[in-house]
Amino acid sequence: MTSADAATDGRAAALLAHTRTAVTPGLRAAVDSLPGRLGRVAAYHFGWEHPDGSPAEGPPGKAIRPALVLAAARALGGDPAPAVRAAVAVELVHNFTLLHDDILDQDATRRNRPTAWAVFGTADALIAGDAVLALAARLLAEDDHPAAPAASARLAACVMELCAGQQADCAFEERAPDAITLDECLTMATAKTGALLGCSCALGALCAGADPAEVAALDAFGREAGLAFQLIDDLIGIWGDPERTGKPAGADLVARKKSLPVVAALTSGTPAAAELAALYARPVLDEPAVRRAAGLVERAGGRAWAQEQAADRMGRAVHQLSVAVPDLEAAGDLLALAEFVTRRTR
Amino acid sequence: MTSADAATDGRAAALLAHTRTAVTPGLRAAVDSLPGRLGRVAAYHFGWEHPDGSPAEGPPGKAIRPALVLAAARALGGDPAPAVRAAVAVELVHNFTLLHDDILDQDATRRNRPTAWAVFGTADALIAGDAVLALAARLLAEDDHPAAPAASARLAACVMELCAGQQADCAFEERAPDAITLDECLTMATAKTGALLGCSCALGALCAGADPAEVAALDAFGREAGLAFQLIDDLIGIWGDPERTGKPAGADLVARKKSLPVVAALTSGTPAAAELAALYARPVLDEPAVRRAAGLVERAGGRAWAQEQAADRMGRAVHQLSVAVPDLEAAGDLLALAEFVTRRTR
Repeated sequence: MTSADAATDGRAAALLAHTRTAVTPGLRAAVDSLPGRLGRVAAYHFGWEHPDGSPAEGPPGKAIRPALVLAAARALGGDPAPAVRAAVAVELVHNFTLLHDDILDQDATRRNRPTAWAVFGTADALIAGDAVLALAARLLAEDDHPAAPAASARLAACVMELCAGQQADCAFEERAPDAITLDECLTMATAKTGALLGCSCALGALCAGADPAEVAALDAFGREAGLAFQLIDDLIGIWGDPERTGKPAGADLVARKKSLPVVAALTSGTPAAAELAALYARPVLDEPAVRRAAGLVERAGGRAWAQEQAADRMGRAVHQLSVAVPDLEAAGDLLALAEFVTRRTR
Repeated sequence: MTSADAATDGRAAALLAHTRTAVTPGLRAAVDSLPGRLGRVAAYHFGWEHPDGSPAEGPPGKAIRPALVLAAARALGGDPAPAVRAAVAVELVHNFTLLHDDILDQDATRRNRPTAWAVFGTADALIAGDAVLALAARLLAEDDHPAAPAASARLAACVMELCAGQQADCAFEERAPDAITLDECLTMATAKTGALLGCSCALGALCAGADPAEVAALDAFGREAGLAFQLIDDLIGIWGDPERTGKPAGADLVARKKSLPVVAALTSGTPAAAELAALYARPVLDEPAVRRAAGLVERAGGRAWAQEQAADRMGRAVHQLSVAVPDLEAAGDLLALAEFVTRRTR
């Protein structure tokens, strides 16, 4: 990491800490308003309680989406205070997706703790997810900020896109690896990862009274940065994290995930693609097979493609940001957050 | 059925048919806007498509909730046209609950067709339910009617109550039958059945520009009528339907459902209560045991209590309606719908 990177990361870390301080009281009050058992399930999921309801200090969520809301409001010259409610709403929507995705993927752990469904059962976790989504909608509907109806509509549309992304992701699991096009894969990643980052920026802009063109540019900024993040995360899922302890190298290959670099390789029409498809058709991949698969993704051009795409998407993100916020000083926080998310798992 | 009942039912049937004509185009357009596969799952669930996507003419939903929205708007002197969007939204929310409840209850059929999860799998049905809920929120958020923000907030709060009701219902399954209090059971039934009927009436009132007291009275009308419906439905679940072919007698007892008359009997402190608890503790109830259980619910006072409660709740519903809509002519449609729902499964 260069010293410039370290400075950016320091700025982002400070922003995230500041955001958690600003947003957590509203988030906890909202979750406390959930009826009975559903409040318990949600408080556990957020890391504030143990399964028995006693207080816990679990690792808090990073609050990247709320930080984008507040930073976007500030970048457009708005007071971030009225944007706090929107920041709470996007964090609720993010956690609604986590509650349901963990059920669908049968993931048993999240942030080093058993997932909500693993502790409370599928029914309670599913219903708690529904209630958390309704809570987000309610928060914005009860807001008397002039931008609240537009923010509500945008967040609801974003949830529909998140659902489409999750559905596509689940469907990919069932399909032959070489039957998925790169376009489908990019659309899925944009819907699943980019949409809520874009919506967070757009909601902040709306709270600052931005005009439609500025709102659209900030949405595009968040989406492109989100896609850059996903591409880099996918590269790490194959080649590991050179700087931090995180995902082990090859984790996505062991799970035979149809990630972006893999689909780029499989659809390359190269001899390596055919060899990779044959490997992916095996029921289990052992250690040497995983190493071979990583080499095939690289030879088929999947690694280079993903690296170029990630850089290209970050370039587009920065361009979109410069359209809406020409002043580099004002745009600084959003840039730092975008650079942080694309580097955070490295 | 008396001739007065027949006249009321005729009026209600005409209202429901009229409502379906008014609401279906907006409902279909909304569902068509769902992305990709999710639109397919929802169109199947609504009965408009076969699993392969070809057009179907499944039995349509009764449209009771949309009819309440439109009738409430008319009863308060409003134009029903601007209420159509709210009517579509409540029908979407109702179907979101059906999609998720069918998964949670593992029900394989609904309206004589396989349920969505049984056809498309749990993942697609769960995500389609999420998307249908977001669609309802989006419709109201995009509405420029002056009452739309209040309607949005009210519908979101109602969804949270529906979730609480469904959670309580699932939790009852796990608890000993005599550990559930009648109050808990009434709260659950109000949340699961009364809340959305009340919200439908309240949304219609809001669209007509009603004042808060009128909105509250119409909400209470719908809730009380909903609870009366649930009580009568529970009686039919034990003693069957004397007039129509519908639920067979004893169906709820075979499933050892902790319905309102059963819980009233179990918590009566009578010798029959103890005998009923022992029967409910058995793994399977055969035909003679079901008949004995029905006799015990009656001897423990559960049948009489439920009948009195149902009459009492309908009385309260009519009183609440008379507060907001003193003119009997104007209130006629809402009364006809309330009487229809409490009679519809008999």
